[in-house]
Amino acid sequence: MTRGRFITLEGGEGVGKSTQIRALAAALAARDIDVVTTREPGGSGGAEAIRTLLMEGSDDRWDARSEVLLFAAARADHVARTIRPALARGAWVLCDRFVDSSRAYQGGGGGITDADILTLHGVGSEGLLPDRTFLLTVSPAEAARRLAARGGSDRMGSKPADYQARLAARFVEMAEAEPERWRVIDADAPAEQVTAAILAGLAEWL
Amino acid sequence: MTRGRFITLEGGEGVGKSTQIRALAAALAARDIDVVTTREPGGSGGAEAIRTLLMEGSDDRWDARSEVLLFAAARADHVARTIRPALARGAWVLCDRFVDSSRAYQGGGGGITDADILTLHGVGSEGLLPDRTFLLTVSPAEAARRLAARGGSDRMGSKPADYQARLAARFVEMAEAEPERWRVIDADAPAEQVTAAILAGLAEWL
Repeated sequence: MTRGRFITLEGGEGVGKSTQIRALAAALAARDIDVVTTREPGGSGGAEAIRTLLMEGSDDRWDARSEVLLFAAARADHVARTIRPALARGAWVLCDRFVDSSRAYQGGGGGITDADILTLHGVGSEGLLPDRTFLLTVSPAEAARRLAARGGSDRMGSKPADYQARLAARFVEMAEAEPERWRVIDADAPAEQVTAAILAGLAEWL
Repeated sequence: MTRGRFITLEGGEGVGKSTQIRALAAALAARDIDVVTTREPGGSGGAEAIRTLLMEGSDDRWDARSEVLLFAAARADHVARTIRPALARGAWVLCDRFVDSSRAYQGGGGGITDADILTLHGVGSEGLLPDRTFLLTVSPAEAARRLAARGGSDRMGSKPADYQARLAARFVEMAEAEPERWRVIDADAPAEQVTAAILAGLAEWL
């Protein structure tokens, strides 16, 4: 049995990740590939329980250090119980956010460095990284339009525009630092074109 | 304002830690010391929520990696919200279990090393260590008698005798490696004698 491929989608809120995960799953299933779609935080029983802790309550319920450990704990459960078993049986795993979201959202704030987050990922998930990560980028105007259309945001997304801009820059920086793993996709384009661009980024395995 | 002292009690189940915390708190309060008693896992709002996740469910609910991260997340909340504020206002903090319990219970199992646990403690709690740690030791026969008297054990304690013996050895090893911080107390003695021995171990600050 060949190990499956581990594919993640990253980017700010409203860039179309969940739409693209669905389209990508359908396109791969049409090629007779066994596909598992999942998302973070969550994606397994224990991780969903931790997700509930992270998502409910006020903005200051968790300080930065507790939060980054809770995300790492949820990810460890997700990797052990969902992602590794699926890859081992040959399925492709499509995941909406993974450790790079922790690096973008939590790294560099509250005294937590990018190296800290990768250290926690090493202990929790033996450093598992995706085979390919797609960064979906949209212009600030398009992001604002999509967020307004969905009628708001959750605790993690409800941040001011300059925060969103720093976040977008941080994602681009990570993509540029690891060009073998990352592909940057212009998600201002119509959804069908975005899906086609993602599939093109998987061509070597299709 | 002088920073308070941070005192922890460690040891296996049934060695009398909670009895001694109460007696010690009373003895210190009688000396006009502001005392905060707390325990792990738990000791703050977020940490108690994580404690619930850790204590409920079956033995295999969490794998070793998720569990060690959850303990570290609970500890980070406990340190940030309860322990550091109390020490800063000059109170003495008496804590039933701390990072050394993670080192004894989780270190060396499931691929988690002692160094991993101290690394997580560095990220989560900026490596805060107690000013003094008392290891309460009892003979295996006495430990069994006390456990039977309290009518059982919780998820973390319900392990076979050889496990309890390895745990006791691990605690002694940690105490011997850091003799400035640790004091080993024979807790087979009557409770009043144990309290007196602990107070003697704090004499330099009383």
